[in-house]
Formats: sequence, structure tokens, C-alpha cells
Amino acid sequence: MSVTAPLGFRAAGVPAGLKSGGARDVALVVNDGPSRAAAGVFTRNRFKAAPVLWSQQVLAGGRVVAVVLNSGGANACTGPAGFQDTHATAETTAELLGDSAGEIAVCSTGLIGERLPMDALLPGVASAHAQLARDGGLAAADAIRTTDTVTKISFRRGEGYMVGGMAKGAGMLAPAMATMISVITTDADLTSEELDRVLRKAVSVTFDRLDTDGCMSTNDTVLLLASGASGVTPHPAEFEKKVTEVCADLARQLLVDAEGATKAIAIEVVGAAHEDDAVDVGRAVARSNLLKCALHGEDPNWGRVLSAVGTTDAVFEPDRVNVAINGIWICRGGATGDDRAKVDLRPRDVTITIDLSAGPHSATVHTTDLTADYVHENSAYST
Amino acid sequence: MSVTAPLGFRAAGVPAGLKSGGARDVALVVNDGPSRAAAGVFTRNRFKAAPVLWSQQVLAGGRVVAVVLNSGGANACTGPAGFQDTHATAETTAELLGDSAGEIAVCSTGLIGERLPMDALLPGVASAHAQLARDGGLAAADAIRTTDTVTKISFRRGEGYMVGGMAKGAGMLAPAMATMISVITTDADLTSEELDRVLRKAVSVTFDRLDTDGCMSTNDTVLLLASGASGVTPHPAEFEKKVTEVCADLARQLLVDAEGATKAIAIEVVGAAHEDDAVDVGRAVARSNLLKCALHGEDPNWGRVLSAVGTTDAVFEPDRVNVAINGIWICRGGATGDDRAKVDLRPRDVTITIDLSAGPHSATVHTTDLTADYVHENSAYST
Repeated sequence: MSVTAPLGFRAAGVPAGLKSGGARDVALVVNDGPSRAAAGVFTRNRFKAAPVLWSQQVLAGGRVVAVVLNSGGANACTGPAGFQDTHATAETTAELLGDSAGEIAVCSTGLIGERLPMDALLPGVASAHAQLARDGGLAAADAIRTTDTVTKISFRRGEGYMVGGMAKGAGMLAPAMATMISVITTDADLTSEELDRVLRKAVSVTFDRLDTDGCMSTNDTVLLLASGASGVTPHPAEFEKKVTEVCADLARQLLVDAEGATKAIAIEVVGAAHEDDAVDVGRAVARSNLLKCALHGEDPNWGRVLSAVGTTDAVFEPDRVNVAINGIWICRGGATGDDRAKVDLRPRDVTITIDLSAGPHSATVHTTDLTADYVHENSAYST
Repeated sequence: MSVTAPLGFRAAGVPAGLKSGGARDVALVVNDGPSRAAAGVFTRNRFKAAPVLWSQQVLAGGRVVAVVLNSGGANACTGPAGFQDTHATAETTAELLGDSAGEIAVCSTGLIGERLPMDALLPGVASAHAQLARDGGLAAADAIRTTDTVTKISFRRGEGYMVGGMAKGAGMLAPAMATMISVITTDADLTSEELDRVLRKAVSVTFDRLDTDGCMSTNDTVLLLASGASGVTPHPAEFEKKVTEVCADLARQLLVDAEGATKAIAIEVVGAAHEDDAVDVGRAVARSNLLKCALHGEDPNWGRVLSAVGTTDAVFEPDRVNVAINGIWICRGGATGDDRAKVDLRPRDVTITIDLSAGPHSATVHTTDLTADYVHENSAYST
């Protein structure tokens, strides 16, 4: 279903030769309207890839007619020439659609620091345009994969409208947003201001709380496009809920497919004085290589949880912190609690609950274990 | 040579049964004076092990007669009972020496969250006391090893005085100070205030700039003890230089012995607007799992350097940042520079130079690569 689940969207995914082996590597998503309202959230990394710099300008206008995406090259750290490549990609797409380049968003993903092969990419864009179809969402989702082992798509049905989405990302998953690109579409009718509010809210509690390896990408982009083709203007809260569900579903798919991971770890922080404290603690724990190794070895090493918690500025008293792993409170009051032998770490899903005993707030951050496969995959990536 | 290189110190290291296999696990270092001036620097982790809480109180008095150390258990997150165990260890040592427990520092290292076997530890302290000797420094250094594959010792000769030291630490190496314990001794004659100033300065540019896995320990302790037995009061700057050299030498030994590491990576940040910026950038790069994997695979992936630099708040313009790996400027002006094929990553030592082009300040942070062996070692540590 993907991005073409809602009315008013066509998509395509084609092989253009950017990746070796003939896999799809160029995608196009077109909003046929009547509305072209759109919003975007981008990486907070200060080295922003050329397509991020371009698309930020496009989204500032609140209107997107099409998104052109490629895998096989991030077009990041490529200087002014790389920015011209992005511009040329948008221009080519605009000409094919009879539109202005200023309403064409561009996303790229792949290796940083290398120019895109424009002589392959631009014919690929034309080929994708020729294949645009109402059922092209799955091919588009396939074309944006890099080390992803599966395509990542989602949709939810609202009251008279749909929300659909696709995403890519398997490594460099950390705030803001993981190394990920996601396009979410809806046939609901909303202003770009309302889309912006909803998207920021949804991303902040989903993609932003995914942290598999602490590495923030130069290319992270999440776009939300509304065609208005259903004629329905949903209740804001209901729409926010549906968009958040699609983002959460896609974030979950990113997590499960994270490079080399064998565990999907939810770090629930409760009893926090502030939600920010809960997120900070969750993120510190999610970034402990030692803990992630221990969980890979199915060792309920709560000492490594506390040593990570202890690096934060969150409000708590060390002797009032409790930790449960998969429901067993193995640390109570900052010291040994229930029998660690009772913790069953064999399932793929692991839940670490950290009770700061400092207030009513909570947050959950998601991560994975750290494995020899992660090391292997990322030792050989660009060679 | 170790801690007994300077005059006025005796040491011992004995097996007490805390570790399996009969290895040495209890060490004692005694300052026979005439001075007992001392200073200490401790972990900034908010979960401080019982011996850290104890020794902070002892060092507040500026006098240390002896340090009793054990491996085979960190006595961290053990609650009030764990603190009583530390107190009892200090009391036992004090009785043996005919001194007050308030002048006995205690250090422990090993697994977090388990009580120490006091029925083995206290007889071990007595045994160490019985074996105290002027040449006991090496045995003491051996007794504090955990996953360390070698003993770590160092000494420097000043103008009429000596500085000696020992350290342990192989994982959980991050600010402040690595999971490390280090005792440094000198027969120079200095006040505890002067020792404190010198030790903080030396630690801040050596142990504090080591970051192998981003994990901060609950037990980090560095102590500096002065016997005054040489009768020499050195020039402050010269003494600071010698202590810094010993700390740097020990830090280097920790780095080279880091769990599973095959590369010793120096991240030199130059052209920074402030020294803090340089340290922040160095540390962000040192914590990039993706970069550490790439360097393990001998891949000069400068894009991963920039994505880490881009997460910091340091002063720089992205299009003015240059990066060299082992002397080859493969990134110039935030984009592709010299040919990456010229970078030779086969040697164990790797230098990454990051020029922020923003000012005159610089700093170097040291880290290692991330390897499958690190994962293996830390997946099985406590089981």
C-alpha cells in the first residue's frame, strides 16, 4: 500500500544503475492533488546533504508536487557541485511533470562524500516518470533501500481518509530521526501549517526515540504530503493519532531491521520529574555499548544500566532508582533486587524499565543489541 | 618500578580468592612518609561505588597513609551494606598499620552489583600487609587487573625525585577517566593542595581524553600520594610535567590494551575556537560506532567523521572543515579532497586530523576501533 494507499498519489521505483546488480534505485512519488500541502522534518546534523538543503527550501513554501528519491549515493559532503546535482534532479523532474522545480523535494541515501552519477540518475528519473502508477508505492519503497533487508511500508485508515507511508533505514539510526528517509502521504485535506504541527509531534515521539547506534545521519528526511483527494478534513487529534501510528509502525520496522541486531530493546523510563529527563535517561542507556553487548549475550547486566543512567543530569536519587528487565525488578533502590536468574532474555523483544522515583513523567526509547554482525557489516560497507 | 619506584613506599599484591584461578586480587600500597599528602580525582558518574564514596571522604582530609585495592568485585550499587564492607576493609588495614581508617583509601574493580566476599578479602588484606616490600609495586599492579591483559606501570625521574604509577582498565573507558583505577606516587615533598592542582590538570589532558567505548564507570579513581622522602620540593611546572607524562603513559597503555581493539586512534582537532570545542568534537568522533567499525575495516570513511562532527555545537562552518586520515587530506572544505586510496590504514596507530578552521585551539582525544572481539568479550563478561 505504501505512499499510494491514499487517493491522489502515483509512484514508481526503477533501476537506474546507481546500485550495482540491477536493483531499483530511483523512486518518484507524485501528488496529483487537488491540494499539494506538505511539511518536512530534517536532520539536525550540521553537515546537511545537498538534497536536505534543497528540500528544506522547498518545504518552506509548504507545497510539494513530487518527491524524487535515490539510493546508491547520499550526495552529502559534495560541496556546491553536489547541490547543483540536486538542483538538476529537481529540474528534470519538474520538466517531466510540467511544474516548477521549487515544488519538487529531493531525497538521497547511500555513501557520503561521493558525487551522484547524473548520467544514470537523470534517465532513471525519466524512466520512473514513465512508470508512475496508482499501485507504484511498493516499487518506490523498494527503490529507496540501502542496507535494508526488507521494504518498509505502512498505512492507516481514518474517518473517510487514508494515511500511507514508506521508509528506509537500517544503520546510523539516532536522533534526530535515524538515517532514514520516509515519505508519508494522505488524501485528507489539511493546511501545510497543520501538517507541520502534526508531523513534528509524531516524529518527536516515534522516529526521534529510535537510537540503534548513536550515529546521526546527514540525510534524515521525513515528508508528509496531503492531496486532499478524499475531500475530508479530519479532526486534528484523530489525524495526529493516525500519522503517529504510521510513524511508529515504520520506526518499529526500522528497529527490527537494524544492522546485525538480534534484539529489539524498549527502554521505558518511568517516574521521571520531566519528560525530557525520561528521554535523556532512555537515550543514555540506549547508547551504552557495554549494555548492548550484554543483552546480545542475554546477560541481565543491570550494573551497566545504572552506569549509563548515572551519566545523565536527570533528577533522581541514586538509592531510589529501580530497574526491571523483562518484568523482573533485579535492581531496587540502586542495589541488588530480585534474582537475576529469573530474567528470561531469550525472546527477541526486551523491555528495560527504569523507575527514577522522581515524578510522574515517562518516555520510551528503542534500541537494539550490539553484535559482531553490526561490526562486520559496518567494517566493509564502502569497500 | 610502578608505585614503589619513589622512596618511602612499600606495596604488595596477593591472591585472596576473589578471582577464580588463584590470580592476585588484593593490593596494598603504603606511604611510609615522612609526608602523607595526597590528592584524588573520582568518577563523575552519579552512581558512585562504595569505595569511591569512602575515598572521597578520606581525600577531603588531604592525607593518605595507605591504599587498599581489590579486583574481582567493584562493590558498586551494593547499598549501605556495601559501604560497610568498604569501611571494614579500611578498618582492617588501619589496624594492621596502627593508623586511623580515615587515612586509608579504598579502590575496588570488577562486576557491579555484587557484594564482596569479605571472608576472603579481609584475610587477603592481612596477607598483603605481611608481604609489603619496597619492590612490591609490580605485584600490586598485577593484582588490580580485571580484563587487562598486561600490567600497566610507569615512572619518570625528576630533579632529585621520582614519580611512579600503576593503572588498570581495559573497557568502560570514557570520561571522566575510563573504568580505571590508578595510583601514582612520588617522593617529592608537596602539599595536598599542590598535589590536587597538579593531578586535576594532568588527568584532564590524559585519562579524561581517552574514550574507547563511551561508557563511564562507577569506580574510576586516580590517586596521587607524596611521601616527601626525597626531601625535594620540585618546581611546580616541572612536577606537573612529570605527573602528566606518567598519566599519559598509563593512559596510552590502557588504550593499547582496550578490549578487542586492533587500532589505537588519535583524533586531533585543530583550528578550534575554544579548547572545549576541540574536546567536544574529538569526543563525538571517538564515539561514532560507525566510524570505529570503518577504521577496523581499514576504510578511510571520512563521511562518518563529518557526520559525527556535525552533531556538536562547536564553532565551525561546514564548508570550511578539513579532515586528514594518516596525513592524507581526504576531505577539504567539507567535501571530497585528496585521493582516499592514498590513505594507508594498515598500521595499528591511526591519526585523524580535523581542522575546524575556526580558531587557534586544539585537543587530542584517543579511542580504539570497534571490533567483533569487543562484542564477544562484553557479551560474556559476567556469565
